[in-house]
Amino acid sequence: MQNYNALLARLAEITHLRRASAVLGWDQQTYMPGGGGMARAQQLTALRKLTHEMFTAPQTSELLAAAETECAGLEPESRERLTLRLVRRDYDKAVKLPLSLVAELAHATATGHQIWVRAREHSDFSAFAPTLEHLIDLMRQQAEAYGYEERPYDALLDKYEPGMKTSEVEAVFDALRPGLVDLVRRIGAAEQIDDSVLRRDFDKEGQQLFGEYVAARLGYDFHRGRLDETVHPFCTSFSRNDVRITTRYERNWLPAALMGTIHETGHALYEQGYDPADDDTPLQRAASSGVHESQSRLWENIVCRSRGFWKVYYPELQRHFPGVLDEVSLDSFYRALNRVTPSMIRVEADEVTYCLHIMLRFEMEKGLLDGSIAVSDVPAVWNEKMRDYLGIVPANDAEGCLQDVHWSGASFGYFPTYALGTILSAQLFDKARSEISGLDSAMAQGDFSGLLAWLREKIHRQGGRWLPAELVQRACGEPAQSSSYLNYLNSKFAEVYRLESASQAV
Amino acid sequence: MQNYNALLARLAEITHLRRASAVLGWDQQTYMPGGGGMARAQQLTALRKLTHEMFTAPQTSELLAAAETECAGLEPESRERLTLRLVRRDYDKAVKLPLSLVAELAHATATGHQIWVRAREHSDFSAFAPTLEHLIDLMRQQAEAYGYEERPYDALLDKYEPGMKTSEVEAVFDALRPGLVDLVRRIGAAEQIDDSVLRRDFDKEGQQLFGEYVAARLGYDFHRGRLDETVHPFCTSFSRNDVRITTRYERNWLPAALMGTIHETGHALYEQGYDPADDDTPLQRAASSGVHESQSRLWENIVCRSRGFWKVYYPELQRHFPGVLDEVSLDSFYRALNRVTPSMIRVEADEVTYCLHIMLRFEMEKGLLDGSIAVSDVPAVWNEKMRDYLGIVPANDAEGCLQDVHWSGASFGYFPTYALGTILSAQLFDKARSEISGLDSAMAQGDFSGLLAWLREKIHRQGGRWLPAELVQRACGEPAQSSSYLNYLNSKFAEVYRLESASQAV
Repeated sequence: MQNYNALLARLAEITHLRRASAVLGWDQQTYMPGGGGMARAQQLTALRKLTHEMFTAPQTSELLAAAETECAGLEPESRERLTLRLVRRDYDKAVKLPLSLVAELAHATATGHQIWVRAREHSDFSAFAPTLEHLIDLMRQQAEAYGYEERPYDALLDKYEPGMKTSEVEAVFDALRPGLVDLVRRIGAAEQIDDSVLRRDFDKEGQQLFGEYVAARLGYDFHRGRLDETVHPFCTSFSRNDVRITTRYERNWLPAALMGTIHETGHALYEQGYDPADDDTPLQRAASSGVHESQSRLWENIVCRSRGFWKVYYPELQRHFPGVLDEVSLDSFYRALNRVTPSMIRVEADEVTYCLHIMLRFEMEKGLLDGSIAVSDVPAVWNEKMRDYLGIVPANDAEGCLQDVHWSGASFGYFPTYALGTILSAQLFDKARSEISGLDSAMAQGDFSGLLAWLREKIHRQGGRWLPAELVQRACGEPAQSSSYLNYLNSKFAEVYRLESASQAV
Repeated sequence: MQNYNALLARLAEITHLRRASAVLGWDQQTYMPGGGGMARAQQLTALRKLTHEMFTAPQTSELLAAAETECAGLEPESRERLTLRLVRRDYDKAVKLPLSLVAELAHATATGHQIWVRAREHSDFSAFAPTLEHLIDLMRQQAEAYGYEERPYDALLDKYEPGMKTSEVEAVFDALRPGLVDLVRRIGAAEQIDDSVLRRDFDKEGQQLFGEYVAARLGYDFHRGRLDETVHPFCTSFSRNDVRITTRYERNWLPAALMGTIHETGHALYEQGYDPADDDTPLQRAASSGVHESQSRLWENIVCRSRGFWKVYYPELQRHFPGVLDEVSLDSFYRALNRVTPSMIRVEADEVTYCLHIMLRFEMEKGLLDGSIAVSDVPAVWNEKMRDYLGIVPANDAEGCLQDVHWSGASFGYFPTYALGTILSAQLFDKARSEISGLDSAMAQGDFSGLLAWLREKIHRQGGRWLPAELVQRACGEPAQSSSYLNYLNSKFAEVYRLESASQAV
C-alpha cells in the first residue's frame, strides 16, 4: 500500500491548502476591511493556482496509477477502491482543463462578480451582458474540454451532481411541474394568509440568540463552528471540526435570518457529521451539491416549518421577543410562516413555488449554452417565463434576471441541484420516518436526535463514497423520486390552506 | 532586468502565500472555534512548508544569482541593490533550515498555542512544560542550523533584530539597568500615587468606542484595518491595506484595553505607512522587531501617556463613560495613568519598570537555551528573578511564567526587541522634536499629523531597505543610544512624582 498511502499523503497536503483558501474566503465575506480586497484576490489566486498545479502534476498521476494497480485485487467497495474511484474521477476531469482556461475563468469571475454587483445595484442588465457573454463562451469551452455524451450542459452539471445527465433532470422536472402548478393554482383560489406578524420589530440580538438556540437544538456543535453575519448567507468548513455558518438579519422580516440560519445549519450538520475515520482523506466530502441541499432543506422546511416544531419552540420564540408576539397564536404564526405566494426572489420563495424558480433558471442556462437564447434577450425571456410559471412579471432586472450571484461566478449547472436536493429531502424524510419508530412523537417533543442519527448513518458518514444516485439507492432502497415531495407538499398545504381533500390526489 | 523582474514575480507569489498564513493565524486567535485547532495546525504547516520550499528552491537561488550579476553595476543604494541585499540575507538564512525542522516548528507552534492557552487558563505550568521542552529543543536545532559567531542566542536574535549580537544587547541592558533601578528606588521613596480611578467600572462598549476613537485620531485607517478582541493583543497584516489590531478588555482596569489598543495602533501605523511603490516587493516590511516596537511604544507612552495628550482627550474620555470620572481631575487621572509600581504582568507594566521585565525574560531565554536553567525550574527561577528585579513574587504561573504567548510560538530571541524598541522610541522622538518646528504646540492641540508625517518619511516608508542600525543612523544622525530614554524617564517621572531635581542627573 506504499503508493496508495503516498497518494493520500499528497492529497492531504492539497486538502490543507484548499481549506486555507476557504478560510480566506470566509474572512473576505465576514470581517475583511474594504481596503483588503485587492491583496485578498492575489492571495486566493496564488493559492488556487498552486493547488490546481499540485493536483494535476505528473506525480499525482503516477501515484494514482500505481495505487490503482496496487489495489486492483481489493473488493470494489473497499475503502481503497472507493477512494481511488473518486480521485480518478476528479483527476481525469481536472487535467482536461487547460491551465489557460483555469486562469481565464479565475480572472473572468473575479472581475465578473464586481460588474454583476454594480449592474444589480443599478438594475441594469445591459451593464452585465458583455460579461455574461464572455462567461458563457468560457462555459462552452469548459464543457468541450470536459467532454460529454449527450449535451454540453451535462459536462457542467456533472461538476455539481456527479453522474447526472441533463435529460434526467428534465425528466424529474417534467414529472414535478404539473403537480406544483396545480397546487399553486388551488392555493391561489383559497383564502389567503396574512403574514404581517412576521414583519414586526424583531431586534437583531434576539434574532441571533434565538437562531443560535435553534441551531444548537438541531444538533449543531458550536464548539466546532460559529455563526456570523454576511450579505449572502453561506456555510463553509475548514475541517469536520470547524464548520461555520452565516446569516443575514432583517429587523422587520423574521424568516430572513431565522430560516437562513436553520438552512445553513442543515448544511453544517452534514459536514460536522462526516466520519472521523475519513479525516483528511478524499472520502470526506459531500456526495453532491444536491445531496448537500437535501440536508439544508430537510431541516429548514420539513422540520422547522412544521407545526410540530413550533408547538415546542414557539413559546421560546415568544420569550426571545418580549411583547412582540404575545397575542399571536401558534396557528397564526405557523400559517404565516408557510404562506404560499408567487414572488420575484428565489431565496425568499415558499416551498411550493421554489422549484418553479429553479426550472426557469435551468431552462435559461440550457438555452444560453446552446445559443437558443441570446444574451441580449435574457431580461425579456426571463420575464416571459416568470409570467408563465408564476403569473407575475419583475418590474426591473434587479428583481429579475440579475438577482442571483451564480452566473457571475460561472456556476452554470448549479441551479438544478437546489431543486434536486429539495425533492430528495422529502424522500429521505419519508424513509427515516418508516425506519425510526416513534420519530413523529419524539419530534413533537423537540427531540431530533433520532432523525439526526439516521441522517448521520445514511448520509453524513458516507461522505463522498458513492455517486449521488448510489447513495440515494442505498439510503432509501429505491432510486430518487419526486412523489414523496409532491405528497408532502399536497398534504401539508391542504392543511395549511384548508383545501378540498378531493384535489389532493395528484 | 529580466532575471531581477522574474525574481520579484516569484517572491510576490511567495508573499501572497505567506499572507494567507497570516490570515489563518489571525483567525486562529480571534474567531476560530475550539474544535478547529488541529486542522488549523495542519493548514499552517502545509502552507509554511510550501512557502519555505518555494523560497529555498533552486529556481530562487538561480534567479537571485542572475539578478545580482544583472544589477552589479548599479549604485549600492539603488532600489535593486537594496532589494537584492535583503533577499540574499533571507535566502542564505532560509536554506540553512532543513525542511523537516520547518515543518516540525510549524506544527509544534500551532499546537503549542492551544496548549499554552489552556495551561494559562488553569495556571498550570506543568501542563505546558513538555511542550516548552520540545520547543526549546527545536530552538537549539534552529540556532545550530543558522550558525553563529559568538553564542547560539545570536542566531535567534538575528531573526528579529538583523545584525545584532547577544553581547550588544547585554551592553545596552547593562548601561540601562543602574539608571532604571535608581529611578525605581527614588520613586519608591516618594509619595505614592493612588490609581483607583482607573479601576472603576468601565463598560466594554465604551472602552471599545473610545479605543477606536483614539486610534483613528492617531491616524489609524479603519478602512484598511479593524480592531478585534483576543487573549493576547497583537497587530498583523495581510497587505499594507489590511492591517489588523486586537486588544483585551478588562472592565475594572481601563489601561488594559486602552493602552493596548494604542500600542497596537502604533504597530499598525508603521505597516499602513509603508511605501505603496513597495507593494508586493521584499522591501515592504519592517526593518526589525525593535524598530517595530519603537513605533508602538512611541505612540503608547511618549504620546498617549503625556500630560499634553490628556489635556485634549481627557474630556472626551469622560464623555465616553458618563458619571464614572466626572469628579476626577485631569491631574489625578494623568498621575494615575503614570503610576510606577512593581507589577506582575509585563504588558501592563509602567514605563520605568517595563525594561526590567524584559531583562528577566532575556536571562531566562539564554539560560533555557544553554541549559543552565531547566524547564522544570522555570516557575521557581522566574519567581526568584521577579523578587530580585522588582521585589514581588507571582502568586501563580498565570501571572508569572505563563503570562506571555511568545514561547508557545517558538519566538525565542524576540523579547529583547521590546526593550530595544522602547529605548529607540525616545531617541526618535527627541530627533523628531528637533526637526519639526512647533511639534509640542501642535500635539498640545491633539494634532499628531506632523509627528506621523516625520515617522512616515524616516521610518515607515523606508520599509526593510536598511538594517536597523543603518536606519537609526539615517533617521537620527547618530547610532542607537539609551541616554534619550533615561533622560525622558527621569524628566517625566521627576514631574509626576515631584522628585528632588538633584537626583535627576543619572
